Amino acid sequence: MNSMLSQLQNKINNKTKPLSSLGVLEEIALQIGKVQNTVSPELKNPTIVVFAGDHGITDEGVSPFPKEVTMQMVMNFLNGGAAINVFCKQNNIKLLVADAGVDFDFDPGLPLIHAKIGKGTKNILLQPAMTQNECKEAMRQGGVIVNQQYTEGCNIIGFGEMGIGNTSSAALLMSKFCKLPIEKCVGKGTGLDDDGLKRKTAILQKAIEKHGSISDPIEILSTFGGLEIAMMAGAMLKAAELGMIILVDGFITTSALIAACHLNKQILENCIFCHQSDEQGHKLMLKFLGVKPLLNLNMRLGEGTGAAVAYPLIKAAVTFLNEMASFESAGVSKE
Amino acid sequence: MNSMLSQLQNKINNKTKPLSSLGVLEEIALQIGKVQNTVSPELKNPTIVVFAGDHGITDEGVSPFPKEVTMQMVMNFLNGGAAINVFCKQNNIKLLVADAGVDFDFDPGLPLIHAKIGKGTKNILLQPAMTQNECKEAMRQGGVIVNQQYTEGCNIIGFGEMGIGNTSSAALLMSKFCKLPIEKCVGKGTGLDDDGLKRKTAILQKAIEKHGSISDPIEILSTFGGLEIAMMAGAMLKAAELGMIILVDGFITTSALIAACHLNKQILENCIFCHQSDEQGHKLMLKFLGVKPLLNLNMRLGEGTGAAVAYPLIKAAVTFLNEMASFESAGVSKE
Repeated sequence: MNSMLSQLQNKINNKTKPLSSLGVLEEIALQIGKVQNTVSPELKNPTIVVFAGDHGITDEGVSPFPKEVTMQMVMNFLNGGAAINVFCKQNNIKLLVADAGVDFDFDPGLPLIHAKIGKGTKNILLQPAMTQNECKEAMRQGGVIVNQQYTEGCNIIGFGEMGIGNTSSAALLMSKFCKLPIEKCVGKGTGLDDDGLKRKTAILQKAIEKHGSISDPIEILSTFGGLEIAMMAGAMLKAAELGMIILVDGFITTSALIAACHLNKQILENCIFCHQSDEQGHKLMLKFLGVKPLLNLNMRLGEGTGAAVAYPLIKAAVTFLNEMASFESAGVSKE
Repeated sequence: MNSMLSQLQNKINNKTKPLSSLGVLEEIALQIGKVQNTVSPELKNPTIVVFAGDHGITDEGVSPFPKEVTMQMVMNFLNGGAAINVFCKQNNIKLLVADAGVDFDFDPGLPLIHAKIGKGTKNILLQPAMTQNECKEAMRQGGVIVNQQYTEGCNIIGFGEMGIGNTSSAALLMSKFCKLPIEKCVGKGTGLDDDGLKRKTAILQKAIEKHGSISDPIEILSTFGGLEIAMMAGAMLKAAELGMIILVDGFITTSALIAACHLNKQILENCIFCHQSDEQGHKLMLKFLGVKPLLNLNMRLGEGTGAAVAYPLIKAAVTFLNEMASFESAGVSKE
């Protein structure tokens, strides 16, 4: 262990508590100290960016909600009424919404990050969701957005998404990247019944067959990904490059991370896995990555809500490290 | 379902999110609404009371820490340096410290709730930890403390404890109340090694044998309990009586709750189980009660720390219920 890390571990061990008794909070404190290369890490300007995009695959009826809900929910975010709004407000997290590819012309005056690459993806059953150039441009834009927040002083950033149909994209990406049969990856999304799930699985199986054996990460991401997923992947890669802490949310967000991992494995050192989604594939994604989430509350809402509600736990890890007394300073006897 | 409850469930279902997609947070929202009998519950003046007491059983060497640490940690609480201090500060929770039975004469001027029943308990290997009168007086004092907070406007209260040796008391209470062999109930506490655990188990087995077949809840609590545990049990009973939400912490706190449950089974309706402690018996205690905790972060620090770090999740449950838009108000299409 290098000298900074052993100092950090000593600092944790000398706090007035039994050894290791803060469990996972101690692991998080260690991780954040390591990423920031300091025994006194700080969390600055915590931010969540929600990326929105539409999906051509919705033409096949993979979601019980109409596609318009993507646009309607973007307006809901801008009006402060969605779950991610109230959780960010509660926990003092800055919230940004980016239009990565919604099939709607938003008023340019809206307080939205206007980063539209296209008006939704193509129907994956017929052709790749996007071109490789569109995919790369989405990733680049994600990086630009993160860089802007970094420049403004943010060092911890989470990502969320909104896109009717995007559990289909995430399931396809999972199947390809984790090399798992599609039925292990598909779930009920926003609320399909058993018949709907069967139909969705059959449609996604056809999509897998349609696109044969592709293996290049960018090719997989452009074939199956949503624009919001590609933009998130680019955002994550930039955040890691800048030494930021990345808050990973649920099923869709983790599909973006898995794509990003195939381009830079090191990214995992910066990631905190905030929760395990109730969308069935997420558990297997986390297993594939070999990580344990902070929360498991049967949530499956997306938008970054798992990251937003987990944030106070991450803050607690840094708080105890910086603010608790040591055995010496408090005059408490050690065992 | 009565009319208020069905209105509450409708309110939850009409928020702009897929049905049930906030998982456990929806269950918590429903529970708090039910306890407060309103579709718009509020959390007022969240408070944690840490009860401290010493244990005669420490004469037998059941803990690796010297008994003086109880008193030293009380001073640490008063100076703001312990884990519970920094977590309460972070999450805007009022923190109170009560001397239930520490073997030390605190300066009467200290900002401590002076509720000392005795200078620690007796050695359980030789005699009951306390008399039934002492136990009842501790419980009564716990009620007085809670009533005071209630009068000041608090409607959600958590409890923590500090007492070198108190995992021994909790294990004995658990063994008696849950009818489990002592080796299922004993754990490493603040950090015993394997030999230490074996010795602790043998000592507690002797204590069980010494006191034979007692079955009255007050008799069990006075025989095996700590003064801080009895005071917590009384505090919990009063909190339930006053319709307050009770935040349940870890192993010791849950032993107090199990005792309280034997006097008023209804108390569980008011309880939110904040975390599962890494102290091995806690998992079985939660199973005995048939409940699922919010967090499982391998914490085993006591002091109410599990309750303090879980609090923002409970707040999130109330926040989404009160602040999120409905499908109607946001103009979002339903499936």
